[in-house]
Amino acid sequence: MTKASAIAHPIQGLVKYHGLRDESLRLPFHDSISVCTAPLRTHTTVQFGMPHDAAVIDGRTLSGRELTRVLAVIDLLRAEAGVTSGFRMESRNDFPSNVGLGASASGFAALALAAARSLGLEMGLVELSRFARRGAGSASRAVTGGFSRWHGGDDLTSVSRPLPYPADIDLAMVVAVVPAYKLTDEAHRDVITSPFFRSRLEHVSTALDNMERAVRAGDAEEVGRLAEVDTLQLHAVTMTGEQGLILWRPDTLRVILEVRSMRREGIPCYFSMDTGATVYINTVGRSATKVRERIAALGLQTMLCTVGRESRVVDDHLF
Amino acid sequence: MTKASAIAHPIQGLVKYHGLRDESLRLPFHDSISVCTAPLRTHTTVQFGMPHDAAVIDGRTLSGRELTRVLAVIDLLRAEAGVTSGFRMESRNDFPSNVGLGASASGFAALALAAARSLGLEMGLVELSRFARRGAGSASRAVTGGFSRWHGGDDLTSVSRPLPYPADIDLAMVVAVVPAYKLTDEAHRDVITSPFFRSRLEHVSTALDNMERAVRAGDAEEVGRLAEVDTLQLHAVTMTGEQGLILWRPDTLRVILEVRSMRREGIPCYFSMDTGATVYINTVGRSATKVRERIAALGLQTMLCTVGRESRVVDDHLF
Repeated sequence: MTKASAIAHPIQGLVKYHGLRDESLRLPFHDSISVCTAPLRTHTTVQFGMPHDAAVIDGRTLSGRELTRVLAVIDLLRAEAGVTSGFRMESRNDFPSNVGLGASASGFAALALAAARSLGLEMGLVELSRFARRGAGSASRAVTGGFSRWHGGDDLTSVSRPLPYPADIDLAMVVAVVPAYKLTDEAHRDVITSPFFRSRLEHVSTALDNMERAVRAGDAEEVGRLAEVDTLQLHAVTMTGEQGLILWRPDTLRVILEVRSMRREGIPCYFSMDTGATVYINTVGRSATKVRERIAALGLQTMLCTVGRESRVVDDHLF
Repeated sequence: MTKASAIAHPIQGLVKYHGLRDESLRLPFHDSISVCTAPLRTHTTVQFGMPHDAAVIDGRTLSGRELTRVLAVIDLLRAEAGVTSGFRMESRNDFPSNVGLGASASGFAALALAAARSLGLEMGLVELSRFARRGAGSASRAVTGGFSRWHGGDDLTSVSRPLPYPADIDLAMVVAVVPAYKLTDEAHRDVITSPFFRSRLEHVSTALDNMERAVRAGDAEEVGRLAEVDTLQLHAVTMTGEQGLILWRPDTLRVILEVRSMRREGIPCYFSMDTGATVYINTVGRSATKVRERIAALGLQTMLCTVGRESRVVDDHLF
């Protein structure tokens, strides 16, 4: 069978998903919206027709739980294509993984697309997002790219759809890398025990409406402002679950305080974190360099990102 | 009129109050429980029969808003005693104020007691707590001391009552001082706008029941555990208000992570913060020195506290 390769960008959650209504189907409690972050990317090559299954990420051969997650996506696609042969996968991230940068989103998005193509499956990205979802919820949004809204619902309807946005949207994202052991799955499980979870569910549809409106209008500052509000809600719910999970690190707070300080000085910038310690600082193009310098001055690794496209097939194979 | 002096201890909130139903009467939305922290203390001397009002704290003459707050208590007591003359107040804290150590609690408690005595008013501490409340809500609990429960209700019934607890309760408190500009009043005002505030109100009666039970049983570890849970709820609600107030500082998080790390090692200790950045670490007597050493090793100023008594009159005058 054909060898196929794909590229996908990781995502920054804007109205973040939190908690899974069905853990094995990876169905969320509510819709969520995110934006892809280019130039960061995962590059993945897949080939079926192999004697056995083998998956390698950044030179590391997967086994156990990691391999099981990959198979959750692969097995569905194999069934869809009526194929039973083994597969080989190789994947590379050009950015640090497991630091809260959405590597599982881009990873499973690129995997789903490369695998579907290798199997000769003809399906659009919205339909494909349903398969990528089974590896990681946020991967559904990395499939459809740009700004995307992942819909809740059931196994058939829980797909991601791209949100239209003006091509000249002036959103720049400075990433401040704060390494910390990630607890995404644990956080999604524990959040349901927070006394604030129900209020979060009640509030989130308004947050989604506001964010979708800001994206469609291309209002980068409003996107940033709303993402900061959403971030505080996410972490508030996380830390009031039974396990009291605190995902911030001292450096996370240093970035938060610096962002607030820059804002008081008139620089439009807003912080945002997923279920990790790494911080995205959403700003506008003209302020990006200044923001990056200020964050770098804290001694942190920074990256500058813009809005990334949807996942796509590439001719460049990793093996 | 007689010169009178009093001493009071600051407090650590255990089930913390948050938000004022009536800001000028300082009536809270719900009950709260705290513990006094000795040996930290405020020492205050008051004398009426003066030509005009003058108040000094730690050598600093009060004016504006600070003086108005003092007069909120003094004027009520003057009216109660039918006295119209001016007063002189001098007050000293033997610990850093405005860093989240409850200096306003001990300050207004000592003020209320010294003033009542100077005016010749005969009233018990529970009744007096009603007057101290008008300076700072938490001062009501510093009046009745030890472990106290401040009751919500109306102007007449919103008093603090001491909770009985075993004399041998083994609660040690290590204070990790993290200086930060305090925003207590702002936090109390903003909290009402959090989408989680209503859930907090619904949840707090259970938290109060659990804490009162732990105090009465003298279960120091359970007191600490419950205070940590309450702390995370308080700060979760605070940071999701309209202003997104973040009261933690990088050093606050360093202490939090060190506490969690000690706990994994088997040392019974729990963090707790009021509406500020300074951290109380609740532990048991035998672990106090170890906990203090570990926190001091982070480069922070530490103090070791035990349960403090109620406010009391002393013969030692400051002028």
